[in-house]
Amino acid sequence: MTYTKITAEILAEITQAVGAAQVFTDEESLINYAHDETEDLKFQPEVVVKPLNTDGVSALLRVCNTHHVPVTPRGGGTGLSGAALPIYGGVLLSMEKFKAILDIDTENLQATVEPGVITEEFINAVAEKGLLYPVDPSSKGSCFIGGNVAHGSGGPRVVKYGTIREYILNLEVVLPNGDVIWTGANTLKYASGYNLTQLMIGSEGTLGVVTKIVTKLLPKAQHSVLMLGSFAENEAACAAVSAIFRAGIIPSALEFMERRGVEWVVQFDNIKFEVKDGVNAYLLIEFDGNDMDTIFKDCEVVNGVLEQFNCTDVLFADTAQQKEELWRMRRTMAESVKSNSVYKEEDTVVPRAALPKLINGIKEIGSRYGFESVCYGHAGDGNLHVNIIKGHMSDADWKDRLKDGIVEIFELTTDLGGTISGEHGIGLVQKEFMPIKYSEIHLNLMRGIKSIFDPNTILNPGKIF
Amino acid sequence: MTYTKITAEILAEITQAVGAAQVFTDEESLINYAHDETEDLKFQPEVVVKPLNTDGVSALLRVCNTHHVPVTPRGGGTGLSGAALPIYGGVLLSMEKFKAILDIDTENLQATVEPGVITEEFINAVAEKGLLYPVDPSSKGSCFIGGNVAHGSGGPRVVKYGTIREYILNLEVVLPNGDVIWTGANTLKYASGYNLTQLMIGSEGTLGVVTKIVTKLLPKAQHSVLMLGSFAENEAACAAVSAIFRAGIIPSALEFMERRGVEWVVQFDNIKFEVKDGVNAYLLIEFDGNDMDTIFKDCEVVNGVLEQFNCTDVLFADTAQQKEELWRMRRTMAESVKSNSVYKEEDTVVPRAALPKLINGIKEIGSRYGFESVCYGHAGDGNLHVNIIKGHMSDADWKDRLKDGIVEIFELTTDLGGTISGEHGIGLVQKEFMPIKYSEIHLNLMRGIKSIFDPNTILNPGKIF
Repeated sequence: MTYTKITAEILAEITQAVGAAQVFTDEESLINYAHDETEDLKFQPEVVVKPLNTDGVSALLRVCNTHHVPVTPRGGGTGLSGAALPIYGGVLLSMEKFKAILDIDTENLQATVEPGVITEEFINAVAEKGLLYPVDPSSKGSCFIGGNVAHGSGGPRVVKYGTIREYILNLEVVLPNGDVIWTGANTLKYASGYNLTQLMIGSEGTLGVVTKIVTKLLPKAQHSVLMLGSFAENEAACAAVSAIFRAGIIPSALEFMERRGVEWVVQFDNIKFEVKDGVNAYLLIEFDGNDMDTIFKDCEVVNGVLEQFNCTDVLFADTAQQKEELWRMRRTMAESVKSNSVYKEEDTVVPRAALPKLINGIKEIGSRYGFESVCYGHAGDGNLHVNIIKGHMSDADWKDRLKDGIVEIFELTTDLGGTISGEHGIGLVQKEFMPIKYSEIHLNLMRGIKSIFDPNTILNPGKIF
Repeated sequence: MTYTKITAEILAEITQAVGAAQVFTDEESLINYAHDETEDLKFQPEVVVKPLNTDGVSALLRVCNTHHVPVTPRGGGTGLSGAALPIYGGVLLSMEKFKAILDIDTENLQATVEPGVITEEFINAVAEKGLLYPVDPSSKGSCFIGGNVAHGSGGPRVVKYGTIREYILNLEVVLPNGDVIWTGANTLKYASGYNLTQLMIGSEGTLGVVTKIVTKLLPKAQHSVLMLGSFAENEAACAAVSAIFRAGIIPSALEFMERRGVEWVVQFDNIKFEVKDGVNAYLLIEFDGNDMDTIFKDCEVVNGVLEQFNCTDVLFADTAQQKEELWRMRRTMAESVKSNSVYKEEDTVVPRAALPKLINGIKEIGSRYGFESVCYGHAGDGNLHVNIIKGHMSDADWKDRLKDGIVEIFELTTDLGGTISGEHGIGLVQKEFMPIKYSEIHLNLMRGIKSIFDPNTILNPGKIF
């Protein structure tokens, strides 16, 4: 695809559209916005623009649409699929100045928030009013809620509370030609034509730029209990996952962690935790509710289930500090793996009872290709993050042969009824794998939808398909 | 729009495509499939086709797409917006032979089901395995699960469990040109490009024909309690609704019923229930869970809330029979109103704290236009079904002036942050009101999406926009 380079005239129009203080062409800015958290990929934009409001985004997109300049929207820059990389140069549209929590409506249990708000700040702001916004990806301390919308984000609590899809009621969106719409209504139900809100969620900034977000909130549960089960085998730990639900229990989180991931994170983050001999896998299980007796009953049922799967040890986190440490262990795992080795992350998801087959298959594929892997993730949703570790693989194999191994992982995922991303998105780095799961007919429908919203293909081009 | 009439040659091709036993041109069939439950509208198809399987639907659509013959898919025929009416003649595609529950996967808590399965039969089949499929519209005894998908259906339990959107994981869909795709994956999370599953839900059979449905299931709660609160005023009952959630409680159902609706249904369905003097509105509130103590605690909290809103009486349904009678009262209400008067139903939905303003506004508009109304619905979701009663309105006013009143109701709904349908859909009868809420820009995006899926506009033409 070829685009117009940003000339002095176009830059002047952009500056006119958003104000000079919002336009950055200095070397440092261009370098800073050339990457996100996806491996070591770097693509420099020609200009970084940080509009202040919806009008600014609209005016900017009008200019770029007219001149055929590509625009890559960016949230907190924590993405793992390269969706925010400006691979054709052009404008990097940073939403970082959309920082306002506009309204927390305690009557309706709804909030209106700008996309540049950091997810954790939003969670804390509603929690202060006794409310719950349950979408908390591991990157919650730095990701933006707008980026979460763009990727259909999840996090540990999906297992009980659902993904961000179930919390987004309405979106203000600037279309690539600068037009502004609200996608839906501020209601819990919606049967008024095609659901554009749901279509925007997970579209990775390719259909429009979200400038306001209306979310649903819930009353916050008053209590929670966290337990950690230790297992000798990955397979048994994974098999216990679906058995918990079959026993009638829906925990508020159910995470899987492999031994090596725990070893590395304990070291990396200086966490007080003993990784015992013979333990190879962990399940981190949280329950929440308003009644401690009920929670304890659920814990007992789950304890019984874990025993059936040869769980060797169960630890209950009693204090807030213990809970926080265990959660930190899980949340910092990606970072600690990254610090230990060259790696590549895949975001497999399957029906949850297929987890044992998935993890065994991944290890088997790895042994054939000579890579190791550290697996962890939201096991309750069947969502396993696979951190592929370079280990003893040669540089040449890592560069050339690894891809075949990844193809095999995704073929396995697909055969098990799953798909190639549960919550990280497709972006740049997974798009070559889309045909493993999706037919040309299917991908052409996506391309067609894109053409309706963005006929000039200026918005985040080169992503998804 | 003009379409090709079905000639003897085209009919032969259709017969060839699906088999002679699936093709009906007799007068009785054409009359039977000329209407759904929407008012007294009737549009006769040229032929009724009842394919046996996906291949049959695909072959049928190929023929119709080639010859430019309109195809109107139909589920159980219980729709209230006229979405299944073959307004341009052509083929009425009944999905009634898609009757198989293909799999109830108790390991993964998922099911695969054909679209012609009656919703209640599916609910009962999974309940026998201790599982819950919580989407139960009032028409559950006769509607099809495929129709529920097409309309994004809800029902009383949405308030705790969400709409059908949260339970549909994957769909097999025949596109208008006969191509077949699966829209997603059998997974609880999905971040693999545009979410075509969510786009299909609520698209009212205009984008493709659903031929298989993969649903999520939940463990079924073991206990439930049902209570009925009586109020002197509509407004107070409606105001209590949002207060219940603010008190931290999420009931499994929270329904509003006006006095006249209850009077009529008691008479119509011969229900043993005394409508006491001075009572003008009711809230029907259900709680479910695995622990009776917790449920009772929630009941107590809610009881306290109801008292603050001058609830005059609370009735607890103790026995299964009592529960069933109260639920029947709510479910049969539409039918009983229909049997009592010429009526028109609107499906307003607003943020739930706006319910008092909505109901007062509806009454005020009615008093200006001279119509009465019976209101009831899923108050916990802010979803109020407004049954407009002809009452003393003249035939001329009913025919000509009523529309202005409905416009005012929808303008009010929109002003309150709501939309013109929460769960019944737009179909034929609400499409003229879409511009009240949605701009031409917005509607053109919908039309554009339609053109991508159905460039020849053969599938359910004339609906939504």
